[in-house]
Amino acid sequence: MKKPIPTIRDVAAAAGVSTATISKFINGTQRFSPPVEARIADVIGQLGYRSNPLAQSMITGKTKTVGLSVLDVSNPHFTSIVKGANRVAQAHGYTVLLVDTEENPDRERPLLEALSRRVDGLIIFSRMPDAELEWLAGLDKPLVFFGRLPRLTLPTVASDDHRGAYMMTRHLVTLGHKRFAYMGFSRSRRDEERMGGVKECLAAHGLELAVYDAATPSAHEGERLCPEMMLGAEHPDALVCYNDLMALGFMKAAQTLGFRIPADISVAGVDNIVYGNYTSPPLTTVDLHSERMGVAAMEKLLDTIAGRPTEPFTLIEPQLILRGSTTSRN
Amino acid sequence: MKKPIPTIRDVAAAAGVSTATISKFINGTQRFSPPVEARIADVIGQLGYRSNPLAQSMITGKTKTVGLSVLDVSNPHFTSIVKGANRVAQAHGYTVLLVDTEENPDRERPLLEALSRRVDGLIIFSRMPDAELEWLAGLDKPLVFFGRLPRLTLPTVASDDHRGAYMMTRHLVTLGHKRFAYMGFSRSRRDEERMGGVKECLAAHGLELAVYDAATPSAHEGERLCPEMMLGAEHPDALVCYNDLMALGFMKAAQTLGFRIPADISVAGVDNIVYGNYTSPPLTTVDLHSERMGVAAMEKLLDTIAGRPTEPFTLIEPQLILRGSTTSRN
Repeated sequence: MKKPIPTIRDVAAAAGVSTATISKFINGTQRFSPPVEARIADVIGQLGYRSNPLAQSMITGKTKTVGLSVLDVSNPHFTSIVKGANRVAQAHGYTVLLVDTEENPDRERPLLEALSRRVDGLIIFSRMPDAELEWLAGLDKPLVFFGRLPRLTLPTVASDDHRGAYMMTRHLVTLGHKRFAYMGFSRSRRDEERMGGVKECLAAHGLELAVYDAATPSAHEGERLCPEMMLGAEHPDALVCYNDLMALGFMKAAQTLGFRIPADISVAGVDNIVYGNYTSPPLTTVDLHSERMGVAAMEKLLDTIAGRPTEPFTLIEPQLILRGSTTSRN
Repeated sequence: MKKPIPTIRDVAAAAGVSTATISKFINGTQRFSPPVEARIADVIGQLGYRSNPLAQSMITGKTKTVGLSVLDVSNPHFTSIVKGANRVAQAHGYTVLLVDTEENPDRERPLLEALSRRVDGLIIFSRMPDAELEWLAGLDKPLVFFGRLPRLTLPTVASDDHRGAYMMTRHLVTLGHKRFAYMGFSRSRRDEERMGGVKECLAAHGLELAVYDAATPSAHEGERLCPEMMLGAEHPDALVCYNDLMALGFMKAAQTLGFRIPADISVAGVDNIVYGNYTSPPLTTVDLHSERMGVAAMEKLLDTIAGRPTEPFTLIEPQLILRGSTTSRN
């Protein structure tokens, strides 16, 4: 491990040129005659010289890495986004550095400030309220944001959460359900859109909505809230959950309590995580196309970094995925 | 976004000291008199000066970030490791930069070489054969490796895969199972240990093992391999899978084919991913304590970076998690 690492001076001396020439050659900022370029490349190969990326970044101002901050790396919705973003970055020679803000708004700003100065651009998920996001502009890096941002003019990618929730609710109304519940996560900016879609559809049909709020967007919270919802005088006959994780937890707890799904209650989630396929019954859900969101966000970021024009706002259309956890009451 | 960013020269001029003094103050390499320190801190606050971390890294050689490479960020086994590692890093003021090598050995070396020069140390998962890992030493950074590494002397953290698989198999033998199958993933270095544990136990009881090899360690492969295993003349009555994802896929496909689990076949996985709780029946598995592995690896890495002594090898004990997917044949 301790053999001396060749420096740019060693390369310059061996090739018989200046260190400035080596630097320009490596960073591609100037061309030299073919014999000179061949000699430099040869020496670099022989000495096993690797330019110091920190020093190189200081000179070029480019790192060829991009940052992606997610709220919870263990939520499959986010890992699908990471997969999509990674694929595009890789195709363009970029490395993605990922940080997990762990659903903790207090961690976001310091983590993103630290990360922003090591990368060429950032894709950001945030739980912080819109009004507290003006510091993002101060990061002074190309940014892409997930979700709608009324107060800032950043390029954004968003799913149509309102429409997805509306479509799912309309489907359940058509199936004959009357007593609706929504298990939400009010700390998320997307909860308002999803609940709004459910409410708008129910109002149009003169139906009520019982709302239960989770402390975290997790299966554990779905389990915890189940008894309160199901063991009252009259339980709902259809439940739309903020996400699939909550729906998974709810279904397990309801079945443990002796309820049959979907005979006693139809259950739907949002996200179309892969594990919804492996429950019994499999979970009906709204696919927000997480992987496509990751692709769109990374394309937008790389366009911005390269100075290419890019659409300021991309809306990804939702899709209903109908499986066995919902049924007709007609 | 375009207001001029204050430089170290602006700070030095406003505080009436040299840029070298500001640099030493920021990096904590020299103390000055309390009034001087107060004046510098004051000016930094007023100007909103943030030191350039690339420049700072060039001076101190420290980035206060550590890298973690995982094989597949969408596998819950790895996200648990990330959670554990993140928690320890955060408690010590470090940021974790995560890269996903996507189960692709060809991607590992370039990604890790690029990452290594931006961080103070690295925690590495690898699919590359031991014989091809000597380049790791050339990264010239503190490293922690997951798994046993006979040929290199790096600090390592490993789960006892052999023992976990042995314990699970012995339990199934005790339950009266006779016809065993193992669904493996031979491209992983850990597959040999797991299958070895199953085989050692069965040999001691004079029982045979049917082996099925998956192309990827995924639920999809579990589904794909199910018909071949179950629709022959005599199907196994107990199946141990390389991981829980495969077991989830297998259970879904077997139930679709009309088999009852565990009445027709007991199914066990390895990893204890959270989704094994939400299948029906819930999945029996071996808990390798992924989160604890992440904690142990990060503690070892931060010890190494700080020059503190650390155990070269930590073995995490496995634990059986018995749920409804296995039953007695007695």
